[in-house]
Amino acid sequence: MRWQPNARGRLEQAAIALYGESGFEQTTVAEIAKRAGLTERTFFRYFTDKREVLFSGSEALKTLLAEAVAGAAASASPIDAVAAGLKAVALVFSGRHEYARQRGSIIAANAELQERELIKLASLVSVVTEALRRRGVMEPAARLAAEAGIAAFHVAFERWVDQTDQKDLWPFIQETLVALKTVTAGH
Amino acid sequence: MRWQPNARGRLEQAAIALYGESGFEQTTVAEIAKRAGLTERTFFRYFTDKREVLFSGSEALKTLLAEAVAGAAASASPIDAVAAGLKAVALVFSGRHEYARQRGSIIAANAELQERELIKLASLVSVVTEALRRRGVMEPAARLAAEAGIAAFHVAFERWVDQTDQKDLWPFIQETLVALKTVTAGH
Repeated sequence: MRWQPNARGRLEQAAIALYGESGFEQTTVAEIAKRAGLTERTFFRYFTDKREVLFSGSEALKTLLAEAVAGAAASASPIDAVAAGLKAVALVFSGRHEYARQRGSIIAANAELQERELIKLASLVSVVTEALRRRGVMEPAARLAAEAGIAAFHVAFERWVDQTDQKDLWPFIQETLVALKTVTAGH
Repeated sequence: MRWQPNARGRLEQAAIALYGESGFEQTTVAEIAKRAGLTERTFFRYFTDKREVLFSGSEALKTLLAEAVAGAAASASPIDAVAAGLKAVALVFSGRHEYARQRGSIIAANAELQERELIKLASLVSVVTEALRRRGVMEPAARLAAEAGIAAFHVAFERWVDQTDQKDLWPFIQETLVALKTVTAGH
């Protein structure tokens, strides 16, 4: 078994390209491996199936989010701790605008992938709620701050993906958190 | 084909009882029909499958929510229009605490049902967003008010289900909307 330089990244790029060209359902693992210049066996060393290529970053994202919420200043309010977590996540997407755009349109075209994305977002809410509880935040504030923060992240992410200036994601999140504050205040 | 008085309600009650006793996966449509004193054929006149028994109210809920958001006072802020929608929904659950509790524990025990519940909540967010847009609310306020309102509803609903006083759902929603306002303000 020869070591393949950046096999994971090559498989991801090949998969995203093929899903975009032929559609997610129509693309086979054999085609992805071929496009990446690798074998199916190598594909399955990195991913359990072709859907997982689009969600393989979820676990790392959860860990990063939990750690950044935990690491926020002790004086930070619950929503500010969530914002610290989202800022860390935003950095990961720096320079990945085009990838995010392609991934987003593949997911938008497939109901099963949309469901998987909802499950991912719900798991981010759980992770943030748990991190806030560990900071001593009581219920329902912990869950509400997590729900509101992830909702703002989701809205901000879609707005960031839809624009073409390739600006950073973080300012979009900041703006959305401010808009959320205004909206929930009832003005 | 004889008309069966309240066949739908009898099937729902039988299904909920059996899912609680034997588990959702283990229960068959034949058993549900038998417990209700009806035939499988009658079951399939009302529900496409055994999962649908737990989600058959979704469409009516969406319509009710959309109409109540649309019907809120013209002067109502976006979040107050959402609150008007949630108040209408809360009335539907008046006297249905025990049903909600049983349904909740069945769903909590099954990953597939939890996914279906997430999809239902996401569809409520879409319906509310659309109703707010029709009121002239701009983006991202429409989507954020819908996301925040449905998140508050979800949290309030679980708190209502968990308590045993059988109080009305609406005060739980009101309290949660106030808590959400405090949380997003960053205090």
